[in-house]
Amino acid sequence: MNNQELIARRLKTLGPTYQNFYDRPLHLVRGSGTALWDADGRQYVDCYNNVVSVGHCHPRVVEALCKQAATLNTHTRYLHEGIVELGEMLVERMPGDIEICIFTCTGSEANDLAAQVARHVSGQQGLIVTEASYHGVSELTRRLSTDSYPPEDRPDWLAVIEPPNLYRGPYHRDDPEAGARYLELARQELDRLEQRGYKPAAVMIDVAWDSNGPLLAPTDYVLGLCAEVRKRGGLVIADEVQSGYCRSGKDWWNCNNYGFQPDILTCGKPMGAGHPLALMATTRDVIDDYSRHYHYFNTFGGNPVSAAVGKAVIDVIESEGLLHNALETGAYLEAGLRELAGRHEPIGDVQGFGLFWGLDMVADRDSREPLSREQLRHLGSLIAEQGVITGTSGRYGQVLKLRPPLPFSRSDADKTVAAIDTALKGFSI
Amino acid sequence: MNNQELIARRLKTLGPTYQNFYDRPLHLVRGSGTALWDADGRQYVDCYNNVVSVGHCHPRVVEALCKQAATLNTHTRYLHEGIVELGEMLVERMPGDIEICIFTCTGSEANDLAAQVARHVSGQQGLIVTEASYHGVSELTRRLSTDSYPPEDRPDWLAVIEPPNLYRGPYHRDDPEAGARYLELARQELDRLEQRGYKPAAVMIDVAWDSNGPLLAPTDYVLGLCAEVRKRGGLVIADEVQSGYCRSGKDWWNCNNYGFQPDILTCGKPMGAGHPLALMATTRDVIDDYSRHYHYFNTFGGNPVSAAVGKAVIDVIESEGLLHNALETGAYLEAGLRELAGRHEPIGDVQGFGLFWGLDMVADRDSREPLSREQLRHLGSLIAEQGVITGTSGRYGQVLKLRPPLPFSRSDADKTVAAIDTALKGFSI
Repeated sequence: MNNQELIARRLKTLGPTYQNFYDRPLHLVRGSGTALWDADGRQYVDCYNNVVSVGHCHPRVVEALCKQAATLNTHTRYLHEGIVELGEMLVERMPGDIEICIFTCTGSEANDLAAQVARHVSGQQGLIVTEASYHGVSELTRRLSTDSYPPEDRPDWLAVIEPPNLYRGPYHRDDPEAGARYLELARQELDRLEQRGYKPAAVMIDVAWDSNGPLLAPTDYVLGLCAEVRKRGGLVIADEVQSGYCRSGKDWWNCNNYGFQPDILTCGKPMGAGHPLALMATTRDVIDDYSRHYHYFNTFGGNPVSAAVGKAVIDVIESEGLLHNALETGAYLEAGLRELAGRHEPIGDVQGFGLFWGLDMVADRDSREPLSREQLRHLGSLIAEQGVITGTSGRYGQVLKLRPPLPFSRSDADKTVAAIDTALKGFSI
Repeated sequence: MNNQELIARRLKTLGPTYQNFYDRPLHLVRGSGTALWDADGRQYVDCYNNVVSVGHCHPRVVEALCKQAATLNTHTRYLHEGIVELGEMLVERMPGDIEICIFTCTGSEANDLAAQVARHVSGQQGLIVTEASYHGVSELTRRLSTDSYPPEDRPDWLAVIEPPNLYRGPYHRDDPEAGARYLELARQELDRLEQRGYKPAAVMIDVAWDSNGPLLAPTDYVLGLCAEVRKRGGLVIADEVQSGYCRSGKDWWNCNNYGFQPDILTCGKPMGAGHPLALMATTRDVIDDYSRHYHYFNTFGGNPVSAAVGKAVIDVIESEGLLHNALETGAYLEAGLRELAGRHEPIGDVQGFGLFWGLDMVADRDSREPLSREQLRHLGSLIAEQGVITGTSGRYGQVLKLRPPLPFSRSDADKTVAAIDTALKGFSI
């Protein structure tokens, strides 16, 4: 069916909550590695989809999926090697004392459970996130996603702190005290939370501050925030759905790059490379405490097929050296983006790490006035016309987001930089 | 690895929240149709796992999964035929005005979203469930699952009504006024809810009352409850995760068997036959209202692979006549179970429909004193030793639950009845 018909039938059956990217929605039909093809046979470089962490339709992942799906797929109340082996592989790669894996199907489920566990273990109800945060779509994680509803609807138990954005926030990269200043802002919000009658159960840190950027936060801020929350009896939850699983190029988990040890770590999309598999991992003490009061059973989470896929993804990441590729190709991409920023006024800032970069787009470099969501959507469309798929992010929807599959190559990076270059040349603010 | 080692490694890595069925946990390694095999090569009849609705590892479902997984798997912000076609196939089979499909990965996510939508659309906050209900594991759906936490922790916005259990509840099958009496109990709880300051956003009806039974409720009660909630401004949510998808043998959805029209219908596990695919479906009016304020995006929900699987499951159900099989084989199984009940005192009641049956097990038929959870676990273990896999349910864990894949055969039913017979002969209360 043609795109106009597909769009009409889609709206009729799925309703208006289903959004499309781009001015002219893409109709994708095939993927392989970092390449995608549309219904007209046009090829694209995928510089956006982290979910397919090891690349689209990786043959080893597909093989593991098919083999197990043809053998057995049932739930975790029967014994099966797969989930135990996947759990052990993950625990080997986990930071610090994290040694228990609870599998879910989505990052929302993992973050929802993490918040429930933190409230139970701390005996406190307050939760802490940043402005313009995103942590999921369940009722609880939607409340934790301040980008998804108006500020006046925020519950009293929620403390919303300033994202540590060294370009766009109140304190900048050139200020050596920026970390301490962001921390002081957070302390003030924690005081206000307690004044409203709530002590913190946990701070949930998206270790990429994805929906704000991505951001590279000051280390002293991050460590200070963890210490401050713990001093008040709360836990530290590292939401590594976006930042983890080798994305940084330096470590499996971005919390290790900042040097903080979470009590709970969540990850999601990339661990199944497109198959619904997610994880809440924690310490033995935390789970023992929680388990004395509650059980948790997720019918689909960690089933034999999901476990087979999860194991294959880890194998591919390590046998293909994708951690190292994220570092090397990430640095190469960064250099290209910085060169672009030197030539294009609307690129106000280049911020990110590994294979996760954001271009903060501005109407004016001095005032840092952000481009609008509509302008970014149009820019993304122009880049897609050049054959490269990107996304948007940021507190004001002003960030061009680049977050490709981990096998992204130098050639892919070249094409991406060239496509943005061409699009910006044809782009008027 | 042997079972003892597997159990030890499982406890170490997954922690104590992961429970096993049976005294001697089953270590399953292969499945096909209604048959399962353990690591020792022993074959079992699966009389429990509804998730694999069309049978374990159905070749057409596996083929659809593998073909799409090898072609493209991405999210719903690009156009794709699969999700639209699946949505259209579902809408064709939906009750009444339900014509919009929002896909999620799990029943928890579907029910969580349904409750959020109902609260938004009604402008009211109260939610209504039964005692010993189960609707999911997210923070919100756990609150709606009164079987999972102590009564003293119930939020003020929750009305908990008596399950319409015509065997074990306060009003029995022989009372022609039982439906009206259960309805009156519900009305009283709705009054109490309003006295606590909450008008109802919705009643969430598990149309099998699975965690209580299953139950066959009085039709006048069900219709009266829907009318009562609507009179007070609330919506009706049919949770068809357990009861729907042809389980009843009479209709795709059990709400049609009662003759009520939900505003929102959710379904889950069986629609993906083991693949994480679930659904919140609703009317155009409801989604238009919700969409004016919120978007919903579930990265994995309705991706091309999930859609391919969902389409294959519907094709198999219809081409193999599984709705009819649920009716025919269900009636045959029922007859066998009723014959058993005539010979075994501990079977206090046989209740259910289609391919979903519960044996309410009692220590004494006159007092209806339920067997304990431990006794049921042991009984299930004895039945498993006879080569048949069953489950437990019920407000007191006293119901032996039979809820097989839909291709369950007469031969399977014979083996199941014989296994229960033998187990009960060797079972002392």
